[in-house]
Amino acid sequence: MNERAFQTAAADAAGRLAEHWRALASCELPVVPPGPPGTTLKALPETAPEQGEDLADILEDTWHTIVPQLVHWQHPNFLGYYPTNNSPASTLAELVTAGLGVQGMMWSTSPAATELEMRVCDWLARALDLPPRFTHASGQGGGVIQDSASSAALVAVVAALHRASRGRWREHGTEGRLRVYCTDQANSCVPKAVRIAGAGEPVLVPTVPGTHTMDPAALADRVDADRAAGLVPAAVVATVGTTVTCATDPVPRIGAVCRERGIWLHVDAAYAGSAALCPELREDDAGPEFADSYAVNAHKWLRTGTPCDILWVADRGDLADALGATPSYLRNDATDSGKVVDFKDWQVPLGRPMRALKLWYVLRAHGLEELREVIRHDIRLAALLASLVEREPGFHLVAHRLGLVVLRAETDDRTRELTQRLAGEPDVLCTPAIVDGRPVLRAALGSPYADETTVRRAWDTVRACAAPAS
Amino acid sequence: MNERAFQTAAADAAGRLAEHWRALASCELPVVPPGPPGTTLKALPETAPEQGEDLADILEDTWHTIVPQLVHWQHPNFLGYYPTNNSPASTLAELVTAGLGVQGMMWSTSPAATELEMRVCDWLARALDLPPRFTHASGQGGGVIQDSASSAALVAVVAALHRASRGRWREHGTEGRLRVYCTDQANSCVPKAVRIAGAGEPVLVPTVPGTHTMDPAALADRVDADRAAGLVPAAVVATVGTTVTCATDPVPRIGAVCRERGIWLHVDAAYAGSAALCPELREDDAGPEFADSYAVNAHKWLRTGTPCDILWVADRGDLADALGATPSYLRNDATDSGKVVDFKDWQVPLGRPMRALKLWYVLRAHGLEELREVIRHDIRLAALLASLVEREPGFHLVAHRLGLVVLRAETDDRTRELTQRLAGEPDVLCTPAIVDGRPVLRAALGSPYADETTVRRAWDTVRACAAPAS
Repeated sequence: MNERAFQTAAADAAGRLAEHWRALASCELPVVPPGPPGTTLKALPETAPEQGEDLADILEDTWHTIVPQLVHWQHPNFLGYYPTNNSPASTLAELVTAGLGVQGMMWSTSPAATELEMRVCDWLARALDLPPRFTHASGQGGGVIQDSASSAALVAVVAALHRASRGRWREHGTEGRLRVYCTDQANSCVPKAVRIAGAGEPVLVPTVPGTHTMDPAALADRVDADRAAGLVPAAVVATVGTTVTCATDPVPRIGAVCRERGIWLHVDAAYAGSAALCPELREDDAGPEFADSYAVNAHKWLRTGTPCDILWVADRGDLADALGATPSYLRNDATDSGKVVDFKDWQVPLGRPMRALKLWYVLRAHGLEELREVIRHDIRLAALLASLVEREPGFHLVAHRLGLVVLRAETDDRTRELTQRLAGEPDVLCTPAIVDGRPVLRAALGSPYADETTVRRAWDTVRACAAPAS
Repeated sequence: MNERAFQTAAADAAGRLAEHWRALASCELPVVPPGPPGTTLKALPETAPEQGEDLADILEDTWHTIVPQLVHWQHPNFLGYYPTNNSPASTLAELVTAGLGVQGMMWSTSPAATELEMRVCDWLARALDLPPRFTHASGQGGGVIQDSASSAALVAVVAALHRASRGRWREHGTEGRLRVYCTDQANSCVPKAVRIAGAGEPVLVPTVPGTHTMDPAALADRVDADRAAGLVPAAVVATVGTTVTCATDPVPRIGAVCRERGIWLHVDAAYAGSAALCPELREDDAGPEFADSYAVNAHKWLRTGTPCDILWVADRGDLADALGATPSYLRNDATDSGKVVDFKDWQVPLGRPMRALKLWYVLRAHGLEELREVIRHDIRLAALLASLVEREPGFHLVAHRLGLVVLRAETDDRTRELTQRLAGEPDVLCTPAIVDGRPVLRAALGSPYADETTVRRAWDTVRACAAPAS
């Protein structure tokens, strides 16, 4: 191995990235790449090379072949989905994590990897004002970094099924009778998690008309009816900040229903959960104190690159009971002592990289004050965009909450036309969706480089796409 | 954001990593850290900082607080588990991946991320001599990068359950009747995957005495008996290179049983699968041509940092049928056209980083010839270690295959004593395990820095631990 070649290439890459970020900030790059399906495939050879190549050439090819065919999620005019964030601190941490190359499946396979993760999950729990039982320091619960809100939901559902059936959910007699509840506004990862866990389709609880949030009375009725019919209600998944309209289910009232009946409450706060960093944005409806498990994607709104979802649980025993496995080749004194946390039992995979380093870097490099300002800044930009929408004839503001703005045109046909034209527009990316059966466009703020000017320009582009074709 | 500070810090980090690798290569660092549980926790503040800190200070703290409490998986004397590999090329790629910060859940959310992954999975399929139907180029199957062999097994099991029940595996009537088969030598991630998928415990098929490999005749008998009893055999998981002894199930004969009966065959080749890079190491028993899905961890033996497991499937439709979900906010023209691959439907999570860049960097920077030499080198070192064990009075060679050597002392008590003493030894890490009910020690070669000298020294340390206490 040639360390000097690595150092030279790393400096080259860092310079290219800094240049790339500047180009994004100044909107010199399109958001959406120009090529049709197959463009990149055609540019790549059909077989791997037999002989090694220079890192410098590989970097050059990256910028020549790959970068021009990416959607730039950090672009100021990337308004699609919810943001997947990034920062120099997070990028630096990934370099260090990769270079150290440890595998932290158990405490014993890299103590600092586990203890750093425990500590930064506690840091964030306190910063988000989560209940103390969600911290490792409490000795009861704690946080663990998952790759996604999907995996967090799967882990929570599996733990809930396990608890509801006293560990017998996979045996004859309970299977087919366990039920998980959410609304049709839950992210698609929730029904997917329920399906993967073999618990069929979730029961869709009605929403309160006009709110897109779960009706707690309807939940109670449905759960009680199911129980009377011999079924076993195991888990409810509530959402803080739904994907389509950023609505928040009334978690305290849902939590009361769950607590009375011994049902696991998982809260998917993937996007909006980060807002609780700001005291003025903490909402009673978010209600983490009612949850058995609570998940936030740091990679959405906390400047931490994907993957970085934090799943907190109130009782760490639930996860280990459902997911634990320690065959002979994983036995070790530390685990046997019961004094350590082995994160392999808190997740689907056995192996795991050192996941916490980038969250540590980001929380330290930015500090909580700056991260709060990031959130407030994005919310101000969304408010600006919402005001532009409201003022514009022929447009309607469908929803506006935190960094999300949902809009439609005068008629559904016009909204569909706008969506089609905008899909062919390389300089802005919005996400179409359906709200109350009607087509809408979503615009979520979150780029590190967005400001008032970029928002106004993006809006001008949307308006231009809405104008009748000449 | 200060790009200059990032560039300075990246250069600092690259220099520190290069120095770290040199220190590992020269065995200046211990393999196992000295601190008891809580050492790192105590060194970290209890709350996140309010104000941002300099990247230089964070890097300094990383080397002061974190690095000394890691187990160094790249150390020449790290002989535990199976290797989790690394390389400068892979490290560089992680820097670039993080800096570009794209999310490749669908083709449309970053075309190059998806197409690069298709291409490098095809590259590796050809290099490993996998059947053409496992390539994207075939239009039938293809490869996808998962985070682990665990996730690959879960995806395969879910797809198999789905196929075996014609999509009705979660409905009343089929659940509780579906069966998955493996041996007690399968990695713990296999029963864990079956449990997560709600299919209970896998059926453990007997092994052929003395081989630790599945008995195909016993499999056929068991499957036929289960079927006669009204159960639905859905999947068999065979292993190429088991965790404890690196044994390989007779995949062609198992495949024949599966094919006749329409059962999904997943092959977990997490470690040993990479050996097929070398034509002289391809074994008839590996039999990928009989598999419906086949998984190899590039992060084990191909110089690619974790996580990087490649799961190949023979029929891409099976995965999308079982795992697909496209709600309104994920609809797009490319997906609707049916002309693109959306990897979100090939995995558990919805979101995903650009996963293929590091495999592309590694395959190009090393070239296939050099990667073959890496494997041959590790196998030579294992042969050296095995010969040292065989020559040593009071030691027995229990198993020796590819880069793995399994040994025991004269008596079980002595093996346990040796294991205890070795657990307190910071300069060598081996993994204890159980083979045929007897305690053993496993030593797996794979560090980029191991050579004859480090193997002989590691062996001297093991021998010293075996000597009676004075």
